[in-house]
Amino acid sequence: MTLAPTVPMDEVWAKRLANRTHRMRPSAIREILKLTSQGDVLSLAGGLPAGELFPVAEVARATERALSLNGVRALQYGPSNGLPELREWVAGKRKGAEAYRVLITSGSQQGLDLIAKVLLDPGDNVAISAPAYMGALRAFDPYEPNYLPVDMDEEGIVPAALETVLAQGVKFLYVVPDFDNPSGRRASLERRQAIVEVCDRYGTLIVEDAPYRELRFDDTIYPPLFELAPDRVVHLGTLSKTLAPGLRLAWLLLPEQLVDIVEQAKQAMDLHTSTFGQSVAYELVKDGALEKRYPALREHYRSQRDVLVEKLHGALGDRLQFEVPPGGMFLWATLPEGVDATDLLRVAVEHGVAFVPGQSFYPREGKLNTLRLSFSLLDEDGFTEATKRLAAAFDAYGIRG
Amino acid sequence: MTLAPTVPMDEVWAKRLANRTHRMRPSAIREILKLTSQGDVLSLAGGLPAGELFPVAEVARATERALSLNGVRALQYGPSNGLPELREWVAGKRKGAEAYRVLITSGSQQGLDLIAKVLLDPGDNVAISAPAYMGALRAFDPYEPNYLPVDMDEEGIVPAALETVLAQGVKFLYVVPDFDNPSGRRASLERRQAIVEVCDRYGTLIVEDAPYRELRFDDTIYPPLFELAPDRVVHLGTLSKTLAPGLRLAWLLLPEQLVDIVEQAKQAMDLHTSTFGQSVAYELVKDGALEKRYPALREHYRSQRDVLVEKLHGALGDRLQFEVPPGGMFLWATLPEGVDATDLLRVAVEHGVAFVPGQSFYPREGKLNTLRLSFSLLDEDGFTEATKRLAAAFDAYGIRG
Repeated sequence: MTLAPTVPMDEVWAKRLANRTHRMRPSAIREILKLTSQGDVLSLAGGLPAGELFPVAEVARATERALSLNGVRALQYGPSNGLPELREWVAGKRKGAEAYRVLITSGSQQGLDLIAKVLLDPGDNVAISAPAYMGALRAFDPYEPNYLPVDMDEEGIVPAALETVLAQGVKFLYVVPDFDNPSGRRASLERRQAIVEVCDRYGTLIVEDAPYRELRFDDTIYPPLFELAPDRVVHLGTLSKTLAPGLRLAWLLLPEQLVDIVEQAKQAMDLHTSTFGQSVAYELVKDGALEKRYPALREHYRSQRDVLVEKLHGALGDRLQFEVPPGGMFLWATLPEGVDATDLLRVAVEHGVAFVPGQSFYPREGKLNTLRLSFSLLDEDGFTEATKRLAAAFDAYGIRG
Repeated sequence: MTLAPTVPMDEVWAKRLANRTHRMRPSAIREILKLTSQGDVLSLAGGLPAGELFPVAEVARATERALSLNGVRALQYGPSNGLPELREWVAGKRKGAEAYRVLITSGSQQGLDLIAKVLLDPGDNVAISAPAYMGALRAFDPYEPNYLPVDMDEEGIVPAALETVLAQGVKFLYVVPDFDNPSGRRASLERRQAIVEVCDRYGTLIVEDAPYRELRFDDTIYPPLFELAPDRVVHLGTLSKTLAPGLRLAWLLLPEQLVDIVEQAKQAMDLHTSTFGQSVAYELVKDGALEKRYPALREHYRSQRDVLVEKLHGALGDRLQFEVPPGGMFLWATLPEGVDATDLLRVAVEHGVAFVPGQSFYPREGKLNTLRLSFSLLDEDGFTEATKRLAAAFDAYGIRG
């Protein structure tokens, strides 16, 4: 394929753009991934799920079933809010959910876009965990919100910090209570109750993003915020981490007051999510088939985490502090005070290893000495080599124990 | 599935919505389709492609090929602008197109959303044909443009009218030159040249939507506007009418200055279009397979048009004036002066037949005595019965010859 020429935006074209467009920017992770695809760079940066766990043969069989059951329906236009049987299946997963409040989206990213589009005027305050999922920031940015970051600790966002922010008046709070991206943290039960209680007091809508919820490495299960306050939580779920992201299938559970308006917004956005993809996905998840995949997924990612943790300890000792996440795909780490992870990344890429500087995950100025490591992609040899290279980069940068 | 309760939007919730959201509304066609699904109503309203032409068996085989070629890639995250091989295929279809300027979208509706999102500030002028595709109006509405309608005649939009509008300063012109929805019209070659010339003079970007282009009923082929001005036309193409809409696969051909920024907007919107759907679609279209479908499609819709035209003449005589469209799926008709098609629709539904009042297609006040009839859905018996019911509705309403 012809490489895209570098075309500087000229004045005539710049004037054609909307104001919001000047807030758009490429995802830092995708830019780093472009770097790592050049030459021999081992990536601890991207969050791609493990491809070897994708049910390739099952997808082929599910497609055949979906097409022979009703091939024309699977290829025809469909309802804007999604196929009824898939919406029923989603509703069956959550206490307090009903099928009419489910809207099928093309990935959770579209769910975030939808919510922001329907709710945010330029300048509106949005409460958001700091650090926060970068994709959410990129989804919200075009609607020109004013981010009010809420501090986190290892138990999740801090209620006192949340209260200070909500007192300023916000459109909604965005939060990932289970195995947060990038922090890997799981909010404790007390924190969940406190978050709901504070939001209740201020009448604040909660946007709960739960892509990693099923990827837990222990037996502790806390209720999603949706189940604590089903009338005031927009809950986002997805098949991307438990089945396959290439299907782009996810859903919103909506407060009933938002059902009609979000459906209209979805219709204006892309009419509806692929009926073909939805028909195939339903065949893949029905009758408990999805839940049967969970034990293997959990075991895989838990073991990946354990290997990365061990290799990091071995290669870097106490030069890198980090939390051991109880689930998900990411490990959040802190460099010695004064080290800028973005500078370190340049050195690391020269040494053949990449990560994501923590700065990219902060809605405003962030902690420069933080970084995110993904344990989803490499195997044991890869982790050994990647952490060795990371140690060499630490040496070259002058980070001592 | 539980029926959605009717939930009036209360004040607290209404205050949570963005200003733009108050401009959103359901598609009139979808609302009519809801009516027609109740009981025995024959629909000349919706624009669903003919399901019997969907290549169900081929989709099953293509899926198998795509998954056995590289199943993990087909189920993994992919590039925001689409799979390279599919972008190459799109570029090969149009003179002056290059693969780096192609962006794969989840249906053309998403292409319209993307363009509006990147270009439109509230209050910006948009030049748009009158009547115009309703889905485009719904896609643009949330960005709060000021529509400047451009009059059409049977040869397409009128250059003098266009000039008057462009002189007021517009962000872009939206137009469907080939077998327009709803008008069924094809812009003549002279009109195409005039449109490009006038837009050139005012430096106006053209958004050319071409979903029906391949559904032509004669041998006349005019170049798309994109080929007349490849540097200043955003061209939208789709597989929805030639393959199957349920795949939600379409594309934008972009001026190179917009390539990067639209890719960023797409990334923020849904990361990328389904790699699964793209992989399957590529297997369905490569090596000329799509073009082999065109003769049968053209013959089918041409014959459908002929039957509807004949039945309308037989049942209604000169009580309904209409143009015979040279392609597409729609026929645009005019009622006697003074008849409001929306009133007539109520009577028609009572008589068991539905159409779309023309009013719905006008960006501002429209011609009340116009309507759109689709010839894509019914068979000969259906057309016989539908036109008979239409005649009964005309009688009941008091429309005489």
